[in-house]
Amino acid sequence: MEFAAGILKKETLELPQILEVKESDREILVEGTVHSIRNMGEIAFVILRKRDGLLQAVWEEGKTDLSICHLKEGDCVRVSGTIHEEERAPHGKELRLSKVEILSSPAAPLPLAIDKWKLNTSLETKLNLRPISLRNIKERARFKIQEGVCRAFREFLYSQGFTEVHTPKIGSKGAEGGSSLFKFSYFHKPAILEQSPQFYKQIMVGVFDRVFETGPVFRAEKHNTRRHLNEYTSLDLEMGYIDSFMDICAMETGFLRYTMELLKKEYAKELKILGIRLPGTDKILCVRFTEAKELVSEKYRRKIKNPFDLEPEEEELIGRYFKEEYDSDFVFVTHYPSKKRPFYAMDDPEDERFTLSFDLLFKGLEVTTGGQRIHDYNMLTGKLERRGMSREGMEQYLDTFKYGMPPHGGLGIGLERLTMQLLGEDNVREACLFPRDMNRLEP
Amino acid sequence: MEFAAGILKKETLELPQILEVKESDREILVEGTVHSIRNMGEIAFVILRKRDGLLQAVWEEGKTDLSICHLKEGDCVRVSGTIHEEERAPHGKELRLSKVEILSSPAAPLPLAIDKWKLNTSLETKLNLRPISLRNIKERARFKIQEGVCRAFREFLYSQGFTEVHTPKIGSKGAEGGSSLFKFSYFHKPAILEQSPQFYKQIMVGVFDRVFETGPVFRAEKHNTRRHLNEYTSLDLEMGYIDSFMDICAMETGFLRYTMELLKKEYAKELKILGIRLPGTDKILCVRFTEAKELVSEKYRRKIKNPFDLEPEEEELIGRYFKEEYDSDFVFVTHYPSKKRPFYAMDDPEDERFTLSFDLLFKGLEVTTGGQRIHDYNMLTGKLERRGMSREGMEQYLDTFKYGMPPHGGLGIGLERLTMQLLGEDNVREACLFPRDMNRLEP
Repeated sequence: MEFAAGILKKETLELPQILEVKESDREILVEGTVHSIRNMGEIAFVILRKRDGLLQAVWEEGKTDLSICHLKEGDCVRVSGTIHEEERAPHGKELRLSKVEILSSPAAPLPLAIDKWKLNTSLETKLNLRPISLRNIKERARFKIQEGVCRAFREFLYSQGFTEVHTPKIGSKGAEGGSSLFKFSYFHKPAILEQSPQFYKQIMVGVFDRVFETGPVFRAEKHNTRRHLNEYTSLDLEMGYIDSFMDICAMETGFLRYTMELLKKEYAKELKILGIRLPGTDKILCVRFTEAKELVSEKYRRKIKNPFDLEPEEEELIGRYFKEEYDSDFVFVTHYPSKKRPFYAMDDPEDERFTLSFDLLFKGLEVTTGGQRIHDYNMLTGKLERRGMSREGMEQYLDTFKYGMPPHGGLGIGLERLTMQLLGEDNVREACLFPRDMNRLEP
Repeated sequence: MEFAAGILKKETLELPQILEVKESDREILVEGTVHSIRNMGEIAFVILRKRDGLLQAVWEEGKTDLSICHLKEGDCVRVSGTIHEEERAPHGKELRLSKVEILSSPAAPLPLAIDKWKLNTSLETKLNLRPISLRNIKERARFKIQEGVCRAFREFLYSQGFTEVHTPKIGSKGAEGGSSLFKFSYFHKPAILEQSPQFYKQIMVGVFDRVFETGPVFRAEKHNTRRHLNEYTSLDLEMGYIDSFMDICAMETGFLRYTMELLKKEYAKELKILGIRLPGTDKILCVRFTEAKELVSEKYRRKIKNPFDLEPEEEELIGRYFKEEYDSDFVFVTHYPSKKRPFYAMDDPEDERFTLSFDLLFKGLEVTTGGQRIHDYNMLTGKLERRGMSREGMEQYLDTFKYGMPPHGGLGIGLERLTMQLLGEDNVREACLFPRDMNRLEP
């Protein structure tokens, strides 16, 4: 019998180790995928794609053991050679090849020139060929940035006393209700896919006080816009013992700051590849919904059509206003109208037509919805009744309040939307590995 | 307009800060939920539940501003008082109350005595009253341990060059296929809930080389056992450029070691509350499937009924065998029969009836399935054809291999099962916040 005793030490070197190797006769072993080949006759430049970036390898007639005509783009190889300084190579180093072993070979030529710096193709084609288009260096860098955001969310919240939870995605009733739910049969019982972990994270405030979850949510909305996905990753937090919804805004500001620091520290390479300038997050202005509407109506001479809702165009103008007037990419729009918020939102005791809630706009796009929730059982069931809603399927949620809950609130952040705005992309699908929309169920 | 400028400093103290306060006349401010009240007449012990544990507060007639009869279990309060040394109190300190402010009050008495050390009730009742039963100190501690496992998985894999991915849970075809899929209508197209991120994580190996995901998976299996859930959290990894499936076993061993270290360091309190002795993870034995069957058949005089499958009882006996013979809680069972593994599993070139795959058993229960995958396009499509399977809905997955993939493999760990075995529980529902099984869709 064999033992598995911790990670096997690999003989092959990864990029950070390779870049530390000094020019010498020492042979090193490297694995990677052939990203591109430029054959000049007696020598050929073979660019290897590794998880940390590209490495220039040089094939030389008579010095490398494999004939260059046996090597092709898409091959996965294990090679050995020596490291040499070379100004014109990426990272200033190249690997002169002595041996090339082909580990696996593609069965067909690549359908996209993924070695181009920028993929010269439509979003539609990129998405249709997603497994291949993501192999482009810029395309994949986006998802390292996305990783950084999600990682920052968790790391920051651990440091603030939050507990991570995993709540079910199959449920019997949605938090916001109605037409935007995917429905299916669960062992002959009617079931839905959760559009938010809202009920569960509130329930868990009664247990752990501060909780978060990073997971998929599902919305059957018949929107086919550049901002909507029918499945996305939601970064959710919920916290007890708040004094006001400003505690939630402050926690989000703290998260955003932490994110920018983590990206600068750990994702500098990807920021550079993508040419991203990180937004300022020192302090974020809060403006009331009604005031925001008036400000943009005045400055941009736009008539207010509906005083109780924000149109996408208005969101963009609010973003523009705060960029122009305060040089700020972010703004919290607070006190949304009650009729536009779910029943569990806490109404403003000073004016019950509005709620103690907010959206965060980032460059004119809503990336977060949050606010204070009702914690009193009678207030909650009273509001439910005034809205003519049934308690059916919500008994357990409501009982949580019957047995006592602290004042609390929370928020949900759309990971893809936040990533999209950081990247400066204009379609949320650019920030989703495998988007699901009304027309797209594959790959 | 207001600014949100990072986390608001709270005046109230959390438990770690409180325990650092020396006995003095300094008044401190604390928030929490009234976990229990023991009223002795002139004084009353009011145990406050906070996210980090319990705090003994003492109400005294004439010294505390609120009458004790106005306080009840389940109240959320903000109190002030002074800290005093008290041997008999949890942590050796108590808070003598001067002021009590009730932030919120339950509408009904608690249906369970959650302040008991061990909830004296059936699993069924605990699950029915989950929002409340989780408020018990021991119940909630389990999910801190679960947090630790999931956190360790991510932290360890970041350190090993893995990239986190978020893959869709709505798909058009499952990795293992067939009857164990939940089906539904996605904008009038037939869709399924993914039973594994298998196809996507393999696709992403072509992009990032090493990837992981922590997310929900869905299985419509008609099992109603102590080991099955119809929705669970899967910890998945997939890695390229492996030499053999032993690279995967080694990575899992590394993860398990890291987990035990993290639990000891950051979750010592919960380990103590639950009386958990962590298992040894220095090295883990690997035994071939066929050999494992023979060993237990011989030692426990049990006839081998089916040479190509492991029954749950056999798994338990293998666990027992390796505990008795090697004092090991873990064992990798390797080289599972090909007919029991999905088409993408790499067959053993030395004997094609078996695969280069494994399960990890932890105290006799399968907690992981993994192995090397086929990376060659022709080998993969050939095996598909020999099994008489259709390519429909898998075109994109298969094309990934057509355009080149490195040798690779990976694994999936059931978070709830791993937690259950760490906790020494005998039902996986004890390690799931809100279990979904054939009969349970709520809460």
